[in-house]
Amino acid sequence: MNDNLPIVAVTMGDPVGIGPEIVAKALCDPAISRRCRPIVYGNAVRLTIGARCANASVDFAAVPSIHEACRSHAAVAVIDPHDAKEATKLDWARPTAACGRAMFAYLNAAIDDAMAGQIDSIATGPINKAALHMAGIPYTGHTEILAHRTQTRDYAMMLAGDRLKVVLATIHVPLARVAEILATSTILRVIELTDHGLKTRFGISDARIAVAGLNPHAGEKGLFGDEEEKIIRPAIDLAISEGIDASGPHPPDTVFFSAAQGAYDAVVAMYHDQGLGPFKMIHFNDGVNTTLGLPIVRTSVDHGTAYDIAGRGRASAESMKAAIAMAARQVEWLRRHRSNTAKPNSLRS
Amino acid sequence: MNDNLPIVAVTMGDPVGIGPEIVAKALCDPAISRRCRPIVYGNAVRLTIGARCANASVDFAAVPSIHEACRSHAAVAVIDPHDAKEATKLDWARPTAACGRAMFAYLNAAIDDAMAGQIDSIATGPINKAALHMAGIPYTGHTEILAHRTQTRDYAMMLAGDRLKVVLATIHVPLARVAEILATSTILRVIELTDHGLKTRFGISDARIAVAGLNPHAGEKGLFGDEEEKIIRPAIDLAISEGIDASGPHPPDTVFFSAAQGAYDAVVAMYHDQGLGPFKMIHFNDGVNTTLGLPIVRTSVDHGTAYDIAGRGRASAESMKAAIAMAARQVEWLRRHRSNTAKPNSLRS
Repeated sequence: MNDNLPIVAVTMGDPVGIGPEIVAKALCDPAISRRCRPIVYGNAVRLTIGARCANASVDFAAVPSIHEACRSHAAVAVIDPHDAKEATKLDWARPTAACGRAMFAYLNAAIDDAMAGQIDSIATGPINKAALHMAGIPYTGHTEILAHRTQTRDYAMMLAGDRLKVVLATIHVPLARVAEILATSTILRVIELTDHGLKTRFGISDARIAVAGLNPHAGEKGLFGDEEEKIIRPAIDLAISEGIDASGPHPPDTVFFSAAQGAYDAVVAMYHDQGLGPFKMIHFNDGVNTTLGLPIVRTSVDHGTAYDIAGRGRASAESMKAAIAMAARQVEWLRRHRSNTAKPNSLRS
Repeated sequence: MNDNLPIVAVTMGDPVGIGPEIVAKALCDPAISRRCRPIVYGNAVRLTIGARCANASVDFAAVPSIHEACRSHAAVAVIDPHDAKEATKLDWARPTAACGRAMFAYLNAAIDDAMAGQIDSIATGPINKAALHMAGIPYTGHTEILAHRTQTRDYAMMLAGDRLKVVLATIHVPLARVAEILATSTILRVIELTDHGLKTRFGISDARIAVAGLNPHAGEKGLFGDEEEKIIRPAIDLAISEGIDASGPHPPDTVFFSAAQGAYDAVVAMYHDQGLGPFKMIHFNDGVNTTLGLPIVRTSVDHGTAYDIAGRGRASAESMKAAIAMAARQVEWLRRHRSNTAKPNSLRS
């Protein structure tokens, strides 16, 4: 095995959701093992059951720590920071406090190893908010946990596919409140995060960023709203003054199509469905959720625990595969970026 | 020529926009002349110039009225209710009051002939609101004129393509005001118009209608907004009680993909970009705007006058072609529907 391959921590997520089976399925794919060295943070017994129900021929071996994981070659190494026996006994699709504790422990262990420089990236499997809540864990999702544990204040959610990349300025906000919550400073920060992310983690040195408007036809000169001129355009102007190739505000119904046709490298969307509706039309099965701004490369499946089909081997592993592959690719680009910026000027190409 | 072909009135729209050239290009296509008998409401000289600049071999012949138009066979008949000389002298991309008067006259003449039963449908070319305004014409667009002249109170805008049909519950409203404007009665009316439109004008007798939510994840049980339960679900329940196959509120970021995959015949979207963003990802070039609820079959190009390329022969006629073809198809379905519903019950298939 190529020892220079990016190490991707794959968190199993909710033990009673589709996590175990999609992780097993994804790790069967030779395209994944060629690109990276995956290490699972989860439960080996549950993963083995998941592999069996998904008819996936992959062996998992529990190891006590990341040091042993890196020495393991025959099987996929599994680090289980939780009570292994507790996870084994759970029933599919029945979230409990034990599930919440388990998924939280897997993620925390991966974050610890990432912060210690032992692994290069994390690809997260699906978790369940209700189970976290039952376990008394005061977070609503992966991103909040990652941000808090890495002391990151500014971060943004990107949905990434080969044809389209979308970054959200607001996320889980009722539609009626989006306009009042939007601020020039937030939009500017998201543009900056997008620019930095495209350059360091996607290898796009001349990143072109389109910023969507908020209103129909981007307000049509104030006829259908003035947030474009009052809030969005100032952010774009500030970004341009920082040397960022940003443009807009663009009409929200056509800018995503233009970007998918190659006119822009990413679109900054003002709210959840403005960005995700168009994105899912072309990347429903292979879209990857990735967090910009963290000190850790982090990707995620873009679906939930799918209890209705958990444990039946029917879940698609495409999003999990895409998340692992994108984590590996981001690590490669980040290494290149770091080695380029570390060179003295005279040696740069 | 098959005299039973649907007669489609094609309005030339703004004389100084791309209307003349895209009408000329569209009418060159044998696929159009096989499906319908087009009659242009516009200016024959301008159309001939448009044909020349677009390198389109089609002959136009001015006729004084619809009766002569139906007798004309060698060339495409053009009815010009406006001052023909005035339209001839206009410069490309320079909207004036004369343009506004001309485009309004073309549309009105087509509406007159449609209301008199002389033509079966209208496919409208692009107009310019500013020119209407210069001419002192108090409408903002085609749909308002059509609704007023046909005394239609309830109508809805559908964007239609082969894979996806979207109907809008609100249209040109600032995003911040969408939530307060949405009403159960409006949504119900749009669901009813969609159901009736799919059945009578698209030949879909068992129409399945998906209704989108307003908020991210359709509110996620009230976590991100309560309009789903308070406003949208009651409309769906009422529609179901009327025998309509309606479902929802569905998460707005996935319902359009599901519909495009075949799960639904149309999606009722709560606002402009919720519906148009996803729609344009797959029907940017061949999408047709059609108005439900009018006594006239009416389709339209889904783009504007494109002054930046007017008179250069570069404009794509795909949307114009699609609008004419869809007008003809809707007339055919409407005839079938009428002949089915006119039969005594015992003869129905």
